[in-house]
Amino acid sequence: MTNPALLSPEEARQLIREEKWRNPTSGMANGYIQANLAVLPKEYAFDFLLFCHRNPQACPIIDVVEPGEHAPKIAAPNANVKTDIPKYRIYKHGKFVEERADVIDVWDENMAGFLIGCSFTFEQALLDNGIPIRHQEEGCNVPMYITNIQCEKAGIFEGPMVVSMRPMSERDAIRAVQVTSRFPSVHGAPVHIGNPETIGIKDINQPNFGDAVTIKKGEIPVFWACGVTPQAVAMHVKPEIMITHSPGHMFITDLKNEQFSII
Amino acid sequence: MTNPALLSPEEARQLIREEKWRNPTSGMANGYIQANLAVLPKEYAFDFLLFCHRNPQACPIIDVVEPGEHAPKIAAPNANVKTDIPKYRIYKHGKFVEERADVIDVWDENMAGFLIGCSFTFEQALLDNGIPIRHQEEGCNVPMYITNIQCEKAGIFEGPMVVSMRPMSERDAIRAVQVTSRFPSVHGAPVHIGNPETIGIKDINQPNFGDAVTIKKGEIPVFWACGVTPQAVAMHVKPEIMITHSPGHMFITDLKNEQFSII
Repeated sequence: MTNPALLSPEEARQLIREEKWRNPTSGMANGYIQANLAVLPKEYAFDFLLFCHRNPQACPIIDVVEPGEHAPKIAAPNANVKTDIPKYRIYKHGKFVEERADVIDVWDENMAGFLIGCSFTFEQALLDNGIPIRHQEEGCNVPMYITNIQCEKAGIFEGPMVVSMRPMSERDAIRAVQVTSRFPSVHGAPVHIGNPETIGIKDINQPNFGDAVTIKKGEIPVFWACGVTPQAVAMHVKPEIMITHSPGHMFITDLKNEQFSII
Repeated sequence: MTNPALLSPEEARQLIREEKWRNPTSGMANGYIQANLAVLPKEYAFDFLLFCHRNPQACPIIDVVEPGEHAPKIAAPNANVKTDIPKYRIYKHGKFVEERADVIDVWDENMAGFLIGCSFTFEQALLDNGIPIRHQEEGCNVPMYITNIQCEKAGIFEGPMVVSMRPMSERDAIRAVQVTSRFPSVHGAPVHIGNPETIGIKDINQPNFGDAVTIKKGEIPVFWACGVTPQAVAMHVKPEIMITHSPGHMFITDLKNEQFSII
């Protein structure tokens, strides 16, 4: 089999569509934007899009699958988002119901799909700049924390910001701000650097999601807004149905990481 | 009377609300973001917000007045957008009907108001960098042109991009790209530099809106996406009712220009 990193986005999606790839998508179609998915009934669509617009660091919208469509017009016009993700999760009234390989018969013409930027893009930019990523070194999930930072409300959607944390040297932290500021569509600059208590995190070794990682002597924690935020906020209103990707199993777009750099 | 440039946004809006100021707002409350207004029935709200999201250079959303509200939560929580603009225009089925000092009895709870970034912010940044602005020097309106660049469609909204043009030296054009790239929320970097025909403009001396300006020897035309675009696109679908600001009579927000710089 071809090295998954060398596949084109179209090839990667086809492999997934044919259920020949059921694994996490990290490292597939290297250099292309991968996105989180949140599918909601269309009566929530305006409020949710406005919520994302008002909270661009936590909820950077890459593109939207409009009601009645199956592709995001700009991000991947030839895709079928109902089949091109390895694993989906279905929630009813805010409760997890089942995991599936496709959602053709669940995602109907009354639902809109939101593709939300993920941290893979800026992590690549950090690596390209020689900044090591601890959870990759330790082979675990990035640690994520619920903060005391309230998102800007929009319609029925509100809730706290969830952040991910990467420890690094103070010198690297400055470079990380520069590097990630170039990518506002995939979470952008950190929301916080330093003392976890400032943003309401009591114990850095007890993340709310993901795994704890080692913080070495001389390192400081650097926090970015996390794409878990919009899913948590959407779940909170307990919509009759909501579809998401399964963690780590993302949608691969036709857009190159560098296209999302603003300078 | 106080110098209008030195008023706070709150003071400027109060003067306007009391109908003591009926003039264009250029130069008022210096340093604060001013915005274009487009108010549409809420059945169009999701499609229009998505259209703006997909065309951020032409339609940079500053904030939204949600249905049933009269203030934009983030941009000016204490304002009343139904009274705080010096002159409004009302369109029915795409046709201009009347101009008014307030729209309290027209803008009902079934309409959403979109505040869209305007060029005042980046023009100030150009001036701060010593780049002269021709239409200001010549005391006329900026020239605007309908291009052959199609906006990205969203739902029922589609149409060509309208651009504004500022001639400058080639040296200044490079600096202008750098300076305006910092402000993606107020049109950002130019969409085109140089030959007008490339983007479908046949005669640079015959703008579709605004006034022609002098292009001196050694200068090149620099084109930015223009906030007229979303209004033109919205008008095209002939909504039963649409409210806009009257040209030059903008909404003054509480947000400082520099807050909208991404780096």
